[in-house]
Amino acid sequence: MLKSDSIFHFASEFRLESGEILPGFQLKYTTVGQLNKERSNAIWICHALTGSSDFTDWWKELFTDGTPFDPRDYFIICANALGGCYGSTGPLSINPLTGKGYYHAFPALTNRDIVLSFDLLRQHLGLAKIHTLLGGSLGGQQVLEWAVQQPEVFERIIPIATNAAHSPWGIAFNEAQRMAIEADATWKEDDARAGINGLKAARAMGMISFRTYNTFQNTQQEKSNEKIDEFRAASYQRYQGQKLANRFNAFSYWILTKAMDSHNVGRGRTSQEAALRKIKAKTLVIGIDSDLLFPTPEQEFLAKHIPEATFETLSSLHGHDGFLVEFDQFKRSVRKFLKMELTKETIS
Amino acid sequence: MLKSDSIFHFASEFRLESGEILPGFQLKYTTVGQLNKERSNAIWICHALTGSSDFTDWWKELFTDGTPFDPRDYFIICANALGGCYGSTGPLSINPLTGKGYYHAFPALTNRDIVLSFDLLRQHLGLAKIHTLLGGSLGGQQVLEWAVQQPEVFERIIPIATNAAHSPWGIAFNEAQRMAIEADATWKEDDARAGINGLKAARAMGMISFRTYNTFQNTQQEKSNEKIDEFRAASYQRYQGQKLANRFNAFSYWILTKAMDSHNVGRGRTSQEAALRKIKAKTLVIGIDSDLLFPTPEQEFLAKHIPEATFETLSSLHGHDGFLVEFDQFKRSVRKFLKMELTKETIS
Repeated sequence: MLKSDSIFHFASEFRLESGEILPGFQLKYTTVGQLNKERSNAIWICHALTGSSDFTDWWKELFTDGTPFDPRDYFIICANALGGCYGSTGPLSINPLTGKGYYHAFPALTNRDIVLSFDLLRQHLGLAKIHTLLGGSLGGQQVLEWAVQQPEVFERIIPIATNAAHSPWGIAFNEAQRMAIEADATWKEDDARAGINGLKAARAMGMISFRTYNTFQNTQQEKSNEKIDEFRAASYQRYQGQKLANRFNAFSYWILTKAMDSHNVGRGRTSQEAALRKIKAKTLVIGIDSDLLFPTPEQEFLAKHIPEATFETLSSLHGHDGFLVEFDQFKRSVRKFLKMELTKETIS
Repeated sequence: MLKSDSIFHFASEFRLESGEILPGFQLKYTTVGQLNKERSNAIWICHALTGSSDFTDWWKELFTDGTPFDPRDYFIICANALGGCYGSTGPLSINPLTGKGYYHAFPALTNRDIVLSFDLLRQHLGLAKIHTLLGGSLGGQQVLEWAVQQPEVFERIIPIATNAAHSPWGIAFNEAQRMAIEADATWKEDDARAGINGLKAARAMGMISFRTYNTFQNTQQEKSNEKIDEFRAASYQRYQGQKLANRFNAFSYWILTKAMDSHNVGRGRTSQEAALRKIKAKTLVIGIDSDLLFPTPEQEFLAKHIPEATFETLSSLHGHDGFLVEFDQFKRSVRKFLKMELTKETIS
């Protein structure tokens, strides 16, 4: 498997939806496989909240030999989102205008900004068409936003466990997490580890939104009735908090959860429905039956208003995280989708 | 309505389940109505996590003239739980051995300790029998624990939106909230406001566990698609955090969420089922169909193993908080329960 990491540099001013300006940026991207002569086999992946461009690290089950997106047949690309911390420009990057890290001065981003930066990379790579664009959660939001912005580019999209606009419920989850970061007094500092204990608490809250009652019941149940403290579920939360703190930072978490909150394909486009109707790609919308954070009515809404859409539900005990777990169901759905000649009738 | 607030003083050493000792304690309690000559009309309420003894403040709809527990017919009592901050001994109280506040030195409590302190008050008041013991959430856990400890005392119990042992899911929610308190560096201090910003984040997280996707959808939806920040759901979370910070403290929150985590009627009693079988009270178990924190299978389990139990589900959009909202359904269920001659057959 030919895997390669690269950096795309954009040296001009980049105007954001907020009106603020980034004095240039870079995107780290990972590719696997090779572009064919017709340049018709590019698969683009948008990662979720704390993901990196290296999808072979967190989603490899979907992109190995023998899978529907077999790297022997496709050129697969994923770029770390602007605002992230895996090689693309984010709050810990050096601001070329000051020579110092951005930290709290990093401007707010929306999914439109993130997608626009991806599109500049796409143009740079000379990819006039994308065979399939896919992603889950925040990545799924970007898939939708991008397909609305550039309906001619994408032949197929697969938005997974995502929505047309972030819900009040989702925003409430994110705000509680940002409040935890803010409660950490070190958050005020301009330092890579600022707010790191708050980030741990935020991640523990996030774990709840990604899972279900049954996930915890099945994996963190006590072996006896005798304990009065030091429960497994509590240790698990601390472990997950620490694990994220070791690989992420509170600034990127803040910026990207805010981008998620701001997601609304309808902004400036009459309505969410009208925006979704602009999408020309053949679309496979995937939901997870136990998803607490992005419940399936949100994906039904997408499938209802995207013209050439079909909707599939993955059955999972794992809630939102099901899209990182239920590979067999996922692969079956994708295989069927790639074979299908989609028609409007399939929406039913 | 004759309402009266009193303090019960217990001046001896009080040994806790952990083995630690409290050098005496006090309980603040509120009563409404009058005890009849037969002393047979006492209704005892156990409050939820952040509640006070003054149930006319937070549950008055259930205890006014014309309700099933009409204060003209019943003597209704509620005591603030040990560890709370509404007049009973808790972490902000003065430790008589040191002359200073307990703060971080306050010992861990379990529901068994809390219920034992209630029972000392019950004996002090000469209440040999309790007509009905009821409570929701943490209060419902105490109802169950107390009815297992003293099966002869309670003629009827109504545990609401509660469980036999706190779930890994519930513990995960509580741990995330305590991590937010801990992320607040002021939490280390011995001061009434220590950890207060962490408490705000914890409360915001709690709000999610008490509500549902639909609650937020119905009350915090934006009026337009145009915003990119300052969403209503986010302001609501901050408002709820601040509101709790104005009336509560992080120490009591910590102690009482830990008591909730430690709840397990089966501890030292062979099994949860065996413990529930000890309950002699006629029992109305109430669940809420949309409860995320204490889902209804937990209440079905209670009704299955408590010998004289019947199970009713309240239908609500409001999730766990439904027991503080769905008064009409609640009153109908209670009225039916009080009229019923319960038999095992009603369990079905």
